[in-house]
Amino acid sequence: MTGNWFCEENTPGYSVQWRMLQLLHQETTPFQKLMIADLAEWGRTLILDGAVQYTEKDEFIYHEMMAHVPLMSHPNPKEVLIIGGGDGGTLREVLKHRQVTGVDMVEIDRRVVELSQTFLPGVAQGFSDDRVKLYIDDGIKFARETDKKYDIILVDSSDPVGPAIQLYSQAFYKDLYQALNEDGMLVAQSESPLFYPQIFDTVVSNLSGIFPLTRVYLAVVPTYVSGFWSFTAASKCYDPLQLSDDSDNIDGLKYYNRKIHQAAFALPQFIRERLG
Amino acid sequence: MTGNWFCEENTPGYSVQWRMLQLLHQETTPFQKLMIADLAEWGRTLILDGAVQYTEKDEFIYHEMMAHVPLMSHPNPKEVLIIGGGDGGTLREVLKHRQVTGVDMVEIDRRVVELSQTFLPGVAQGFSDDRVKLYIDDGIKFARETDKKYDIILVDSSDPVGPAIQLYSQAFYKDLYQALNEDGMLVAQSESPLFYPQIFDTVVSNLSGIFPLTRVYLAVVPTYVSGFWSFTAASKCYDPLQLSDDSDNIDGLKYYNRKIHQAAFALPQFIRERLG
Repeated sequence: MTGNWFCEENTPGYSVQWRMLQLLHQETTPFQKLMIADLAEWGRTLILDGAVQYTEKDEFIYHEMMAHVPLMSHPNPKEVLIIGGGDGGTLREVLKHRQVTGVDMVEIDRRVVELSQTFLPGVAQGFSDDRVKLYIDDGIKFARETDKKYDIILVDSSDPVGPAIQLYSQAFYKDLYQALNEDGMLVAQSESPLFYPQIFDTVVSNLSGIFPLTRVYLAVVPTYVSGFWSFTAASKCYDPLQLSDDSDNIDGLKYYNRKIHQAAFALPQFIRERLG
Repeated sequence: MTGNWFCEENTPGYSVQWRMLQLLHQETTPFQKLMIADLAEWGRTLILDGAVQYTEKDEFIYHEMMAHVPLMSHPNPKEVLIIGGGDGGTLREVLKHRQVTGVDMVEIDRRVVELSQTFLPGVAQGFSDDRVKLYIDDGIKFARETDKKYDIILVDSSDPVGPAIQLYSQAFYKDLYQALNEDGMLVAQSESPLFYPQIFDTVVSNLSGIFPLTRVYLAVVPTYVSGFWSFTAASKCYDPLQLSDDSDNIDGLKYYNRKIHQAAFALPQFIRERLG
C-alpha cells in the first residue's frame, strides 16, 4: 500500500484504511478533532475524532433515510428540529419537502458547520435557506429549555462517546417528547445492531419507554462500520411505516423511494428476536 | 494497533484490517492461496487469495439469503445444484428444506471442502447428508456436460478474478439454463452494486439476456466490502419475489424471514436507475 492512508479504528479488532489524496484541513475545536480530506474512491470526507462521518460517495443513503422516512409518513410536517447534523446533509434532505415551513438546527460545534460550508460540496446551500434557523448550542440544553413544538425531530448524532453520550439518554428523549406536537414523530440514528448491539438496545428501549409507537428501520451505509445501520422512529400518533397520502413527491433522490421506505422496516430474524 | 493483523486490500483505495488471534492453517492449492484463522470479534474465518470469504460472525446472512429466497419461492424444489460454495454454508441452508431430495455440489478446489470440514464449525455436517453428492470439478465443465435437470441452481462463486471469471460469463449461464427444469430458477451472487457496479451490471445483463424473468435482491453482508451485497435471481417460470404457499417452514434462521424475503427486492433508487 503506497501513499497516505487514514486509519479508522472502528473496534479493537477491526479497522478500515482509506487512501487519502489530500488532507485539506485539520483542527482541534473545543469539542473534537476535526479533519477534512479527499479520499480515493470516496471523495470529500469529514472525520470527527478519528471516525469518518461523511463521505461524498454514500452520504446520500444516511441522510435520505434519516429525513424522508418520517417526513413521508407524517401527513403535515411543518416544523422540524434537527439535533446535530452540522455537516448539513440531513438539513438538505429536509428542505426538499415544500410542506416544511421552518427548520431549527442545533449543532454544538460551530466549526463543523463553518467547515462544511467551506469544504463539503452539495450541502452548503441549506444553511442559507430562509426557512432555517441555526443555533450553535448544546442539543441537550436546547431540548430542555425550548418552548416550541415541532412536528418532526431528527437526532443526527455522532457515536456515543464524549459529549454525544447524553444524546442517547432517556432524559434527553423525554425532553424531545415534550417538544413534539401531539402528532409528532422523532427519528434517531441508532448505530449498528450487529457491531454495537448494546447502543442499539439502549436507544430502542429508551424511546419505547416514552413513546406509544417505536419502530426500527435499516439502511446500508458503507461508510459506517459494517454497513449495517439502524434508525429508530418513535411516534405519538402516525405509524412511521405507513406512507402518508399527503406527502410530497420528491424528485432526484438516489436511495429513498416508497418501496424502500416500507422495506426498511423488515427486520432480520436476529434483530426481531433481540427486540423481543 | 498491537498484535497480528490481516489486511484485506479490497480496492486500491480501501482496505480492512482484521485482528488475528491465531493463524490455524495456510497453504497454496493448485487454484488459490488458502488461509484459516481465528479473528478477534469475527470468529473462525476462511480467506481465499487474500479475500475474506467466510466469517463465523455473519456468514449466516449470505448463506441464508442465497438459499432460502429461491427455495421459498419455488413450490417444489427437489433437485438442487450448487456451483462453488466449498465451505458448505450454502449447502447447510439448502438441506434445511425437507422438500429437497438431492443436492449436487461442484467445487473446483478439493482443499476448500476438506479444510472447511476440519476447521469451520457448524458447516461440516452437510457433506455427510445422504442427499448430497460432491463433485470436485470445474463448474464450467460440469454445467456444459451434465444431462441432469435441476429445480434450483445456486452460483456461490468467489470474486471474478482468476478461474472464477468464467462463472460470470453468458456462455456459462446458458449452460445452466439448459440444466434447469422448465420451471427452474437460478440465483447467482452478483457482488456490490456500489463497489463493483461493472460486475453487477455484467451478471444482471448476462442473465436477463437468457431468462424470461430476472430480479435483483439485496442483503447486508458486513464481511464483504461495503456490506452492500447483491444477488440476482433468474427464473424460467415462478417469480422469485413471491413466496410459494407450499414452501417449507424453516425454524432457527437468523436473518431470513418472509418479510425480509420480499423487502430484499426493494431496490434503492440508484440501482433502479442503473437497471433501467
